[in-house]
Amino acid sequence: MQVSVIENVLKLNDEIAALNRERFEQAGVFVVDMLGAPGCGKTELIESTMIRLAPDVKVGVIAGDLATQRDGERLARHTNQVVQVNTGKTCHLEANHVREALKSIDLSTLDLLFIENVGNMICPVGFDLGQSAKVGVFSVSGGDDKAAKHPQIVLESNVLVLNMIDLLPHVPFDADVFRADVRRLKPRAKLFELSALKFQGIEQWLGWLRQHLSTDRRAGRSEALTT
Amino acid sequence: MQVSVIENVLKLNDEIAALNRERFEQAGVFVVDMLGAPGCGKTELIESTMIRLAPDVKVGVIAGDLATQRDGERLARHTNQVVQVNTGKTCHLEANHVREALKSIDLSTLDLLFIENVGNMICPVGFDLGQSAKVGVFSVSGGDDKAAKHPQIVLESNVLVLNMIDLLPHVPFDADVFRADVRRLKPRAKLFELSALKFQGIEQWLGWLRQHLSTDRRAGRSEALTT
Repeated sequence: MQVSVIENVLKLNDEIAALNRERFEQAGVFVVDMLGAPGCGKTELIESTMIRLAPDVKVGVIAGDLATQRDGERLARHTNQVVQVNTGKTCHLEANHVREALKSIDLSTLDLLFIENVGNMICPVGFDLGQSAKVGVFSVSGGDDKAAKHPQIVLESNVLVLNMIDLLPHVPFDADVFRADVRRLKPRAKLFELSALKFQGIEQWLGWLRQHLSTDRRAGRSEALTT
Repeated sequence: MQVSVIENVLKLNDEIAALNRERFEQAGVFVVDMLGAPGCGKTELIESTMIRLAPDVKVGVIAGDLATQRDGERLARHTNQVVQVNTGKTCHLEANHVREALKSIDLSTLDLLFIENVGNMICPVGFDLGQSAKVGVFSVSGGDDKAAKHPQIVLESNVLVLNMIDLLPHVPFDADVFRADVRRLKPRAKLFELSALKFQGIEQWLGWLRQHLSTDRRAGRSEALTT
């Protein structure tokens, strides 16, 4: 009985995600689901990205958290298309959270929409939200073992980010160990190593985003990304 | 239907947790469930604690992770009573994981048992494992907003740890903001600020553990802790 309930929940989620995806594609908006542990710097990365892409790329954000409006308020300094979703005790965003949030977002004004998932390396990974791409964010302060310990986020993300490289002199983190774990799980993984706070190494990440934005614009739809 | 399934799962969990607790109390072992985000330094704190408490306090560990034996191997340098539990895709430990792990632990040799939960600030909080105390671990690198964003872990932990204070000069973290959020949620919260890596500020934490160990020994049981 438990299995069938979970299957039904996921099936309903997938149906709503498909509707979200259709809306995103019609609007020509590239939608990035940002996944990662609490404190890995998802909000910081979105903020730095918005600063660097302004004013030519219009960015919106749906920010998920159990509680507080803090991310929403922080991001509202850079865009008026931001919605905070508080999930209460729910450990991940579902497609329906996104559908509800879209009532307060004008997609026609946007090129790029970030969905900042609830800080959690595990539960959000399995939920399709209708995004164009999933980005798994790791941080240097979180330890070099986190890719190996969380294979699903590595496998299911289209792109990986290793954030907080400015802290490398101050923490025990062997970048070779981290990279080797990533390659073992996914030999062709796309990995950006950067510091969102210091804008260090951020250009490649921005280039990846821009590439998909322009693809969107030309084709009028999101291009399929390989995981 | 979904609600009743979840209720049944939790009811079964609580029954097994009660059996675990009975075993811990009979053995006079103080059992600490360590909760926190991936990369907040749970393993580091357990490791530093074992180093400082050796040889007079005998410590065992049940280490939970989705995948890999890395924590188990790391901790096995300090104790022969260590079991790694790999949960696969499950985002938290349940009482039954602990019951299974106890088949490989000799409680009669221990004073203190750490259960290092899966790295996740959300899902593990609601599951009773039979522990004597829950410890919620935060880290300076994770940002000063994490107590406010995760009220449940603050409310349900008996003790809070703010780890990685050695990184304060290198990251944007306002300790007053963090402390104020903790106090607002829980005015009498017990909070230890330390760096497990540098053994900085660790004495108060060790003192808290020792106090409960000796209580155990005298009374032959775990003393009830307030959350």
